[in-house]
Order: sequence, then structure tokens, then C-alpha cells
Amino acid sequence: MESLKNRSIGIFDSGVGGLTVAKSVRKLLPHEDIIYFGDTARVPYGNKSKATITRFAHQIMFFLMEKRVKLVVVACNTASSLSLGSLKRHYRVPVTGVIGPGVREAVRLSKNGRVGVIGTSSTVSSKAYDRELAKAKGSYRLFGKSCPLFVPLVENGFTSDPVTYKVARKYLKEFKAKRIDTLILGCTHYPLLKGVIAKVMGNVRLVDSSLAVAREVKGMLGDKGLDACRGRRPGTIRCYVSDDAEGFRKTAGMFLKEKIDVKKVTL
Amino acid sequence: MESLKNRSIGIFDSGVGGLTVAKSVRKLLPHEDIIYFGDTARVPYGNKSKATITRFAHQIMFFLMEKRVKLVVVACNTASSLSLGSLKRHYRVPVTGVIGPGVREAVRLSKNGRVGVIGTSSTVSSKAYDRELAKAKGSYRLFGKSCPLFVPLVENGFTSDPVTYKVARKYLKEFKAKRIDTLILGCTHYPLLKGVIAKVMGNVRLVDSSLAVAREVKGMLGDKGLDACRGRRPGTIRCYVSDDAEGFRKTAGMFLKEKIDVKKVTL
Repeated sequence: MESLKNRSIGIFDSGVGGLTVAKSVRKLLPHEDIIYFGDTARVPYGNKSKATITRFAHQIMFFLMEKRVKLVVVACNTASSLSLGSLKRHYRVPVTGVIGPGVREAVRLSKNGRVGVIGTSSTVSSKAYDRELAKAKGSYRLFGKSCPLFVPLVENGFTSDPVTYKVARKYLKEFKAKRIDTLILGCTHYPLLKGVIAKVMGNVRLVDSSLAVAREVKGMLGDKGLDACRGRRPGTIRCYVSDDAEGFRKTAGMFLKEKIDVKKVTL
Repeated sequence: MESLKNRSIGIFDSGVGGLTVAKSVRKLLPHEDIIYFGDTARVPYGNKSKATITRFAHQIMFFLMEKRVKLVVVACNTASSLSLGSLKRHYRVPVTGVIGPGVREAVRLSKNGRVGVIGTSSTVSSKAYDRELAKAKGSYRLFGKSCPLFVPLVENGFTSDPVTYKVARKYLKEFKAKRIDTLILGCTHYPLLKGVIAKVMGNVRLVDSSLAVAREVKGMLGDKGLDACRGRRPGTIRCYVSDDAEGFRKTAGMFLKEKIDVKKVTL
């Protein structure tokens, strides 16, 4: 199994946001190599249909299969919500998304069982978080709210601008009456708005699922005996994008604090 | 030439925004049939590279060629800025974009020769408006500013929200010192923000190029003897999108005040 162990972990996202997940995986599993794919030619996914996102996800899976990855992380909440089931049905390689780990973390943190989730329009309307929470033991209520302006605000550097506070107050207002004590940041861009969201929400626990995902990946690799050999050289990260490597490299700095190798490919 | 005359005009855009152009064409040329393509699976174009947008534009041209259109309007400012030259070089069918008509309209309106243009990041950094204005007789200065949040604000219905005023004041502030008297709305979504932009800019003429484009189309059809026969039945409009016909139909209502037929196709 030596050769399988030393294969890379594949991580994909609609764009640059999934690097928050890649960063957590690198931190927790420093010996693992990562191949990251960002679909920058077709970003964003958040307001597109299930059929289209599933088609894109399969194209990316095919790319990652050719790179012979040992495990795939769907780091995009929208693709996890709409297409994870289809990917799991079709491929032998273990695949995980970001919904399950985020929900399990929220369940661990919530005291009153009232949990909020914010995400893109497609994520929230898919009800994927609701279905995952229904699997948890105990009684929980989930309140979802789509926040479609958060991604463009982050991508345009408005991470602590007064405009963003105004938008956040508008979007998050309805959670006050719901008395949630835990809020899942159900989009890879949202951890960059943690400061704004925390201020607007006050005394509510925020779930950044990237750490939970990294723990899930560690568990899966361990269970299957696929973890890279200890004492091996430090892991590497190689990024592929479907458009404009240079632009990706620049924005990536906001997410991942290291220099990365980025190549453009056409799927 | 009868059969050529009765073919449709092809209009394409990254999404729904180009319907502002389709609307003007229908108004000025009520006997013409229109085939509209919105690339909703890959929208937006505004922050993507020239190579990628040009690849998308050629795929759409191929689709329109199969529909046997007699003329193509690139209704997207980004695609016009980045890819019009390539399309004109490769196809026999007459192709027009939105940059030239917009610039000629601005030249007609400006008294002091100081013209502003707002658009997506890719449009503004392409310098396509600068190159077009350089062809005008007389002495003009162009000041460009990208406003990347305007499209998501429009698409999420924030067309007259206080947030949008705040963003507009931030983006447009720098035009004050430039003493422009004319501002080109260099993106098909921006006419929907006319109210906000007019209030923020005060006494400045706003150029909505959709009317200018319709006049250009009329002129081109006339010159080439390709205009639909007068006295013919009223023209029709058929829309094709690369994702989610239902969502397009809904948003289309904001742009085009008539019921439309929308089909999803995979390019």
C-alpha cells in the first residue's frame, strides 16, 4: 500500500475559497501532498443549478482521477450540497464534503439546539444542511439564510468595510428572533468575514468548517490506512485553475499564507 | 436575398444583462426576430481572462451560426472589450459589440471632452474604451473605473438600496476631481442603477449604450440590405441559456417587460 499512501489528497472548489480548507488540512496533516483545483473560469457556483454544478463536479473529478489522488475533498459548500451524493455513487475513491463535518461541529457546540446556517442561494435552498442535521442524535432546529452578496464583498476586498457591516446586519437580522446560539459559516469565503459576522451576531458561536473538515480527512485516511508515512518530507501543495493563474495567485494570498505553484488547465 | 433578410439577429451576453440591448433592438426594429443566448452556467465574465472569454465567445458564436443568424450583437461589455476583434476576424457574419456605439454616443453628448466609463474589472483594464475613443475626431480624455460590486448588487435586487448608494459613492468619488460631463455605463447591468448613479453623479450625462447599439444594428442591416421585410409579422424573441431556464425567466422580468420563451442548452 506504500504507493497509495504517498498519493496526493485532491481538494476542489469553484474558485479560491476552498483554500481555507486546504490551509487547515496542511496544518493538521503536514506530511500530505495536496492537489487543489479552482474552477475560476466558471466561478461562482452559488446561484447555479444542481444539473450544471454536478456536471462541473464530474469534470473536475475526472481531472483529479488522472492525477491519481487517494481521497477527494469537495471544499465548496454549493458543490457539496448539490453534487456530493452523485460523486460518492460514481467513484471508488473516498470523497468527503464540507456539510457533514460542519454540522457535527455545530452539534458539538450548540447548547440550546438552535442552529443557524448561512451560505449561497443554491446551498441554502438545497436543504443539504437540514438533511445532515436530521441525522444527529437529539433535538435540533436549523434556520438557513442565503447571503449572496458576501462572496463578491470578500472577493473585492470589502472584508471589514462599513458596507459589509450594513449588508451583514440586513442578512443576519432575522436570526435574532430565532435565538440561535450557533451559526455555521456555510461557504468557504465566510471565514474571512468572521470579524464582521461576530460583531453583528454578538454572543453566538461561529462554526468555520475548515478545521472540522481537516479532522474528518485525518480520520478517513487513518481508517483506510492511507495516511502519508510519518517522517516523510513536508507535504507540498500544487494548484490548478481553469482561468488566469496570475489572478488566482494574488487572491490566494488572502486565504493561504504561503507561496504557491499555480497552473492553468482547460477541462 | 429574401431568405437572408428573414433570418434572426443573434444577441449574446454572459447572462441576463444583455436583455437591455435586446429590448432596445426590439423597440427600434419591431419586425426583427431575435435569438438571445445567456451564458448563465459561466456567468459572470467581468473578472475573467481574455483567453477564457474568447474561448466562451467562440463556443457561443458556433451555437448562433447553427441557428443561422444574419448578424451578431455581442451585448456583453466584457466580451466586446476582450473578444470582438477575434470574432470579427474569424466569421463572415457581421458582428458588432457595445463599445463603439457607446463611445460614439458619449462623443455626441460631451461638451468638455472629459468622459468617464464604468464597467467590470476586465472591461476597464482591457482599455477597449480608450482605444475606441482615440478614433474619435477632436480631443477627448477618458477616465475608467471598475465597479465590480454593481453586478451582484443588481442581480440581488439591491437596485435602490442604501447599501448601493454607499458603494456607488465610494466607486464614483474619484470622478468629481476629473470634471467629467459624460459617463458611459459600460456594463449591461448598469442601466438598472441609473437612478442611483444619477443621484450620486449629479449633473453628468449618462450613456446607456443599448439604444446606441440598436441604432448601429439598424444601420448595419440597412447598409447590407438585410433588414426584415416591412409589413411582416411582429418579430419574436427566443432565449437560450447554458443553465437554469427558470431562474433566467424570473430575472429577465427585471430587464425585459414581456413574457419570453427560454430553453436550456449545453454548449
